[in-house]
Amino acid sequence: MPTAPRVDLRSDTVTTPTPEMREAMANAVVGDDVYGEDPTVNELQQTLACMTGFEAGLFMPSGSMTNQVAIAVHTRRGEEVICAEGSHIYEWELGMMATFSGVVPRFVPAPLGVPDPEQVRLAVRRSIHQSPTGLISLENTHNKAGGTVIPLEVMAQIRKVADDEGLPLHLDGARAFNAAAALDVPITEVCRPFHTVSICLSKGLGAPVGSVLVGSKQLIGQAHRYRKMMGGGMRQAGVLAAAALIALRDGPARLQDDHRRARHLAEALVNAGYDVNMASVQTNIVYATLPDAQRKVDAWAEKGVLGSALGPDAVRLVLHHQIDDEMLHRAIQVLTA
Amino acid sequence: MPTAPRVDLRSDTVTTPTPEMREAMANAVVGDDVYGEDPTVNELQQTLACMTGFEAGLFMPSGSMTNQVAIAVHTRRGEEVICAEGSHIYEWELGMMATFSGVVPRFVPAPLGVPDPEQVRLAVRRSIHQSPTGLISLENTHNKAGGTVIPLEVMAQIRKVADDEGLPLHLDGARAFNAAAALDVPITEVCRPFHTVSICLSKGLGAPVGSVLVGSKQLIGQAHRYRKMMGGGMRQAGVLAAAALIALRDGPARLQDDHRRARHLAEALVNAGYDVNMASVQTNIVYATLPDAQRKVDAWAEKGVLGSALGPDAVRLVLHHQIDDEMLHRAIQVLTA
Amino acid sequence: MPTAPRVDLRSDTVTTPTPEMREAMANAVVGDDVYGEDPTVNELQQTLACMTGFEAGLFMPSGSMTNQVAIAVHTRRGEEVICAEGSHIYEWELGMMATFSGVVPRFVPAPLGVPDPEQVRLAVRRSIHQSPTGLISLENTHNKAGGTVIPLEVMAQIRKVADDEGLPLHLDGARAFNAAAALDVPITEVCRPFHTVSICLSKGLGAPVGSVLVGSKQLIGQAHRYRKMMGGGMRQAGVLAAAALIALRDGPARLQDDHRRARHLAEALVNAGYDVNMASVQTNIVYATLPDAQRKVDAWAEKGVLGSALGPDAVRLVLHHQIDDEMLHRAIQVLTA
Amino acid sequence: MPTAPRVDLRSDTVTTPTPEMREAMANAVVGDDVYGEDPTVNELQQTLACMTGFEAGLFMPSGSMTNQVAIAVHTRRGEEVICAEGSHIYEWELGMMATFSGVVPRFVPAPLGVPDPEQVRLAVRRSIHQSPTGLISLENTHNKAGGTVIPLEVMAQIRKVADDEGLPLHLDGARAFNAAAALDVPITEVCRPFHTVSICLSKGLGAPVGSVLVGSKQLIGQAHRYRKMMGGGMRQAGVLAAAALIALRDGPARLQDDHRRARHLAEALVNAGYDVNMASVQTNIVYATLPDAQRKVDAWAEKGVLGSALGPDAVRLVLHHQIDDEMLHRAIQVLTA
Repeated sequence: MPTAPRVDLRSDTVTTPTPEMREAMANAVVGDDVYGEDPTVNELQQTLACMTGFEAGLFMPSGSMTNQVAIAVHTRRGEEVICAEGSHIYEWELGMMATFSGVVPRFVPAPLGVPDPEQVRLAVRRSIHQSPTGLISLENTHNKAGGTVIPLEVMAQIRKVADDEGLPLHLDGARAFNAAAALDVPITEVCRPFHTVSICLSKGLGAPVGSVLVGSKQLIGQAHRYRKMMGGGMRQAGVLAAAALIALRDGPARLQDDHRRARHLAEALVNAGYDVNMASVQTNIVYATLPDAQRKVDAWAEKGVLGSALGPDAVRLVLHHQIDDEMLHRAIQVLTA
Repeated sequence: MPTAPRVDLRSDTVTTPTPEMREAMANAVVGDDVYGEDPTVNELQQTLACMTGFEAGLFMPSGSMTNQVAIAVHTRRGEEVICAEGSHIYEWELGMMATFSGVVPRFVPAPLGVPDPEQVRLAVRRSIHQSPTGLISLENTHNKAGGTVIPLEVMAQIRKVADDEGLPLHLDGARAFNAAAALDVPITEVCRPFHTVSICLSKGLGAPVGSVLVGSKQLIGQAHRYRKMMGGGMRQAGVLAAAALIALRDGPARLQDDHRRARHLAEALVNAGYDVNMASVQTNIVYATLPDAQRKVDAWAEKGVLGSALGPDAVRLVLHHQIDDEMLHRAIQVLTA
Repeated sequence: MPTAPRVDLRSDTVTTPTPEMREAMANAVVGDDVYGEDPTVNELQQTLACMTGFEAGLFMPSGSMTNQVAIAVHTRRGEEVICAEGSHIYEWELGMMATFSGVVPRFVPAPLGVPDPEQVRLAVRRSIHQSPTGLISLENTHNKAGGTVIPLEVMAQIRKVADDEGLPLHLDGARAFNAAAALDVPITEVCRPFHTVSICLSKGLGAPVGSVLVGSKQLIGQAHRYRKMMGGGMRQAGVLAAAALIALRDGPARLQDDHRRARHLAEALVNAGYDVNMASVQTNIVYATLPDAQRKVDAWAEKGVLGSALGPDAVRLVLHHQIDDEMLHRAIQVLTA
Repeated sequence: MPTAPRVDLRSDTVTTPTPEMREAMANAVVGDDVYGEDPTVNELQQTLACMTGFEAGLFMPSGSMTNQVAIAVHTRRGEEVICAEGSHIYEWELGMMATFSGVVPRFVPAPLGVPDPEQVRLAVRRSIHQSPTGLISLENTHNKAGGTVIPLEVMAQIRKVADDEGLPLHLDGARAFNAAAALDVPITEVCRPFHTVSICLSKGLGAPVGSVLVGSKQLIGQAHRYRKMMGGGMRQAGVLAAAALIALRDGPARLQDDHRRARHLAEALVNAGYDVNMASVQTNIVYATLPDAQRKVDAWAEKGVLGSALGPDAVRLVLHHQIDDEMLHRAIQVLTA
């Protein structure tokens, strides 16, 4: 009897390329992108810039790189980067902001991932006895807070703080399309308040590899040098860009389904007695608080359902386009058994 | 009619050298310390190492440098430094931990400046997806929390965490002598749990310039290179060390008086209706919470009493050996007028 | 009349994936390599480690990243990296050794790209007044010197210097397979003297994207963290690894042909009166010295032959597997017209 | 029989403060320079700015710090600093340009310490494939070349290159007063072509500790932050500045004597058969080439004459104001015995 395939809810990064993506990769017209000559990379960059309302884009191998290149572009050594507690640029990017850009984080509290614009303003440093603020960085949706969404008006208010203080504003938009889907607005609206946005193609959108940093021509021009420094200058990268273009075309429309399934999963967990903060279940991520998280995750894994233990008492489950209703049903059965 | 001298309560760094220090500077036997040949510097380093129970010491122009050199000695790029919220190494050392050492802070809550050892343990990172912890750093007394003291047993417990995790433990002991005075123990007791301690001579002890990093011969050997990189290799530094030796001889015994006066000042402020957390008044620093702090500080300054506005609604007042009872009396009159 | 395709001799990085590579990409079994679960990436890493005689390998998006990760693994901030004049790690990696690792280069002369082992020994620094040496790095073949080969015995002697001084030895082996082909030895022989070797798959071997760092399990374990910091953690990178495996299988055997064609091209240039140092034409690269190089290169480009002007009076021409005898013939006609 | 005092020719940094300096230190009016309130520091900064023709100055504990702060002010991470081979900022400042500023050196040949302006121009990098040039830095006099002087017209030509390329120009003027004395021009002439100049007070001028960076108000304003980051913010630094003011008043006039004695020493060495390049003996430094330098230096030291072995076959001897004719005579007897 054949075993049912495992249900992998560890992250939306685990999707594998669709047949259509594979075909696109096989047929991609490519060139040496270090010389700027890969037409498929150029198309991807231009398409995404256009979709998000910016002049230019730059393709890189990961979202960590797009974020860290943006930090480098906006800051000078010794400055502070204001960001929400639990931000990916700090929690999961391994100190790169310090090692490469020489900057430190300045945290503002962010209940459900949403910082209060007035606290952002208070976090700005100007005294000669302290590190000056160099950048404000938001994350929408906010991964560690549960895939939560920053409302449009909050982003606009924080842009106003940035303008008042003469500061640049960056968005870690690894899941910006999820935010747009949840807010039911075009992606342009989510990106509008920012000077640069990092968009990930290999999370919810489903491409195998890659992120794009979008911004003005001038900022993206500066980003080129930092990408090269970090070793992100790839040669015939069009093979990746070809798959990413498919992801960009087909992925956004599917996100509403992921969100619906995440709510369904969360409700099922609550009904089974799990401790889930339903207010945080806004997109494709579900966090449950439970003791002995790793042991639990290991037990589920033996039954074919994969989740992530994040810390001693938290489990994260993430929906994506390769989890259909049947698989979700199977997962719920295992998790609530 | 001659004006009374102003009462400067901004910091214990504002003291001017005593006549005895000036004489010592004038008569110091000196040499080129870059060649290790300044006998007065060598004497200071050895004296302080001996007093604090370490093998070796290294003289530097500031406490920021001794802390940042220690961070460099203990860490590799991309690691995290666990420290209490509001630590001087982060708040007032301008991102140097990032720019020079390439490391980021990992904060633990610290009510009254005292971190919970279990929270320190939880803050240690080992996952390959995160920055590994490279160092635990404490601050005793904790400046921003109000000159508060970490009890000996808490320090011992945190040392145990460090040992369990195989991590080094550094003390920002800019005011370690104040901690010893408040705990009424020898300075050795305050320093014992640590691998390195930074001791400032130009704060409560009253020297014009200088701090010393103490530790094992091996660690101090490594510190030499980082001091030189930061430009802390001074030539005939014995002129400063001579004054520091006087500070080290006479300063510690006077700290009890500073602490007594701080309590007296705090009580007077409370009696006059100020909002002062008396639990935090443990050594020579008094914080009062009041609206419109900068305006208030400016008003007092016109009447000859100087304090520091730290943030929009906090005032800091610091006692030191050049504030006697008469001056304190005068200050209280102005502050409570 | 159809135009003949242009002959691109700018670099061996300009090759496009073969049909077989494209098919391999389309059919690759992939997983999330950030979790270590991409079987094709794992196969590539293991295959290359095995071929080169090391325990482990790590796939990255570029040769710059593999080199810079190796530098980070081997050094501590403030140290010197001994390397040959004109080394790629300095000339074309944009100061990353300084910005990320905090280290500076220490150059040794290298006629035809080959440093004298005794000069390497003299370049080691131990004085406390100078940066200590942290790493010796060689480049074989040496790009800027003309694709020249370091003989086995010279590498062995430099390894002896490294051992005597207790220093690690890294090889920028972007074209190590070219060196092996020129020396007519297995690739293991070229890699044997080193602690880490960076092997590029997208130069002479012809893969679209990627390099692998090989070394001991311990060193490659450390490399993981630095790769992640630089943003080199890719998701379903197996699509790239699949093409790289083809390159690794078929590429090495073709290099002798590239070398033969390079010699043929160089001789044709000399016969036409160009100034070419034939002693430097050892592999697949030909340098010619001529005035007004950029103008010349532009003129050739109009006739369909692409080269690189490197500096005001040098032209570089590089052979690769997508230049056959007919194309070479055509190029020679244009260049010598 | 009393022993004659040893003759210390290792460096001009070994001088001890004169009685007048000691008195000045004992009587200095001081304040907390971190608050900008030390009147003696302010006087020193203003005096030196005025003497050198700049708007502002900033006192620091060492020449390494003034140079490295200047590099930080002028550059962004990943850039190149053009400098002469053998420059102090590279050879003796322990990689700080890399670790702190994230920049790498780009060397130009400099026979007798004087770079050719055309080679400086050729060293400027603009390609997107290379580190862009961020700064040109000269050293006058050039220590490692033998205390050699860059002529005024060469400095003017290099300033023209800097202007043409839109680059800042820094002078490591640790011994700029020696250059002025040798050129027989006011110090303003030596400093005129530069955007910033680092002046050392503890070398030929004889102060115990300290250097000053001079430049425009804007650049010196930026320098404040970097000085603080490096730990160069000292408290009652006026005790050092008081001695430095004496050095600045009395030191320059004495340098001609040092230069005369250096020539005399060099001639005596040549007459005794030593290999000295007389063309390099332009100020207060004498280099002799001889086998087994360290053994020779050790032998002289036993007879009371100290020099420095720099490398295996070079000895450096430096004149300063605490070497009078009698001591020089004695040194020559020992060295030529």
